[in-house]
Amino acid sequence: MDRLGTVAVVGVGLIGGSIGMALRGRGLAREVVGVGRDMTSLEQARSRGAIDRATTDMASGVAEADVVVVCTPVGRVAEDVRRASESAPKAALITDAGSTKRAIVEAVDRSPRAAAMFVAAHPMAGSERSGSAFARADLYEGRVCVLTPSPRTALDRLERARSFWSGLGCRIVEMGPAEHDEVVAYTSHLPHALAASLAATVPADWHPLAAGAFRDCTRVAAADTELWTAIFRDNRGPLMNAVGKLQDRLSSLKYALMNDDEESIRRWWSDARARRSLFEAQQPPGP
Amino acid sequence: MDRLGTVAVVGVGLIGGSIGMALRGRGLAREVVGVGRDMTSLEQARSRGAIDRATTDMASGVAEADVVVVCTPVGRVAEDVRRASESAPKAALITDAGSTKRAIVEAVDRSPRAAAMFVAAHPMAGSERSGSAFARADLYEGRVCVLTPSPRTALDRLERARSFWSGLGCRIVEMGPAEHDEVVAYTSHLPHALAASLAATVPADWHPLAAGAFRDCTRVAAADTELWTAIFRDNRGPLMNAVGKLQDRLSSLKYALMNDDEESIRRWWSDARARRSLFEAQQPPGP
Repeated sequence: MDRLGTVAVVGVGLIGGSIGMALRGRGLAREVVGVGRDMTSLEQARSRGAIDRATTDMASGVAEADVVVVCTPVGRVAEDVRRASESAPKAALITDAGSTKRAIVEAVDRSPRAAAMFVAAHPMAGSERSGSAFARADLYEGRVCVLTPSPRTALDRLERARSFWSGLGCRIVEMGPAEHDEVVAYTSHLPHALAASLAATVPADWHPLAAGAFRDCTRVAAADTELWTAIFRDNRGPLMNAVGKLQDRLSSLKYALMNDDEESIRRWWSDARARRSLFEAQQPPGP
Repeated sequence: MDRLGTVAVVGVGLIGGSIGMALRGRGLAREVVGVGRDMTSLEQARSRGAIDRATTDMASGVAEADVVVVCTPVGRVAEDVRRASESAPKAALITDAGSTKRAIVEAVDRSPRAAAMFVAAHPMAGSERSGSAFARADLYEGRVCVLTPSPRTALDRLERARSFWSGLGCRIVEMGPAEHDEVVAYTSHLPHALAASLAATVPADWHPLAAGAFRDCTRVAAADTELWTAIFRDNRGPLMNAVGKLQDRLSSLKYALMNDDEESIRRWWSDARARRSLFEAQQPPGP
């Protein structure tokens, strides 16, 4: 992609901070401006090298932006996109990094000016850690970024969004916002719901007998409460379906165990094992 | 522990192979004999450095053993312990590495000679890989090994079993066989059941949108089918209870989502998060 002038990152936590570090590390922008609500954490992000300068004023932060990336919690993204669209140059691209897309796209589409500038995105990388202190320039390298254009999305912005996220190292996948939310309910939100369920189900007294399987499966249960409360609420319909499907699968196991049905237990495991092997084989080679 | 003479490892796969490598690497035994059913895989284990010599004949393999470690699948452990007890010196210690303990201890206790020589053990480390090719000398370093003595266990053997497993780098925990099975139903078998449920619930077409949470939570679903069919059957009562508890937890989330009950969703997540943080804080410092 051609070198950008100013990129404004709205919300400079783990995600926004990592985007800023990648832009600066790859020399993709002349200047990265961090926009946030708290000057102390913005200054921390600046000292980490995530942004060049910081402001708590959205209007001045985005005033000269070629690209605005909104990295606030999903419940705030649509409103921040709308506010950014009022002060950013009309030619700017606005994109986001929210984990859900349908509600955000629907809300932005109700504002014609914002809708004309916006391309919804979900770069699929994160961490159970929060804050720019954990940001990493390579967080997005080789990761999928899903773009979810709507009928209102301008084609030139879609092309620029592809270029922007590719420039950060992402592989681009495109689908509708509702389809995205349905898929990530299974691939991301369900694993988070399971991690938290497992963590809460095992009494702390028994932790000494928990080994790798427990540790790995519960890792993401350490993630931020407000972040995940907002994601779960935003995607509650698809997530309820996904949880139901998972419960059905567990019920099949319980039924086979109740009957000590060796062949059913074997098939139950080997079907899962085959799917998991397929996933493993599909992964790009590691670093 | 004093240096041992001969240690016989019955079943030289990932677990038995790692025990052999640790014994040899730490100089804990004069000789490690591998006992198995297939000379080809025994020769592979020997070329990996897991054992000094190999035999498919149990009687000659254990004839001079100070210690016999039975590392066969849980469904075969009790019978292999009984067979080993017939040919091993009467002063030998027999221990095992099975993932369940109640059924094994009950079966061994029915044979007075075997019961007098046996101390049931569960070293809590493993891998989703199988076979001595994946064995590692450090598999047990710093891991918990649960010993589950019964009223028939001889105190001198219990003391020798503590010394043997400590010598391999394990931290020793002791409890009854039934209590062990109840606890590992939650801390180990439930995470495996969840991993397989999640792997099977997510359609393969959606794998490109699966990131770290899915990958980590499903990792152990790659484990051997026969191994896990046997473990699930052996511990089916406690596992059914654990699965039921997990389903209850998921149902609470579904109910909160159905009502878009923000406060309940927040509490549901933060309770789990607190438990997971406690687990993290309890872990010994990494290598």
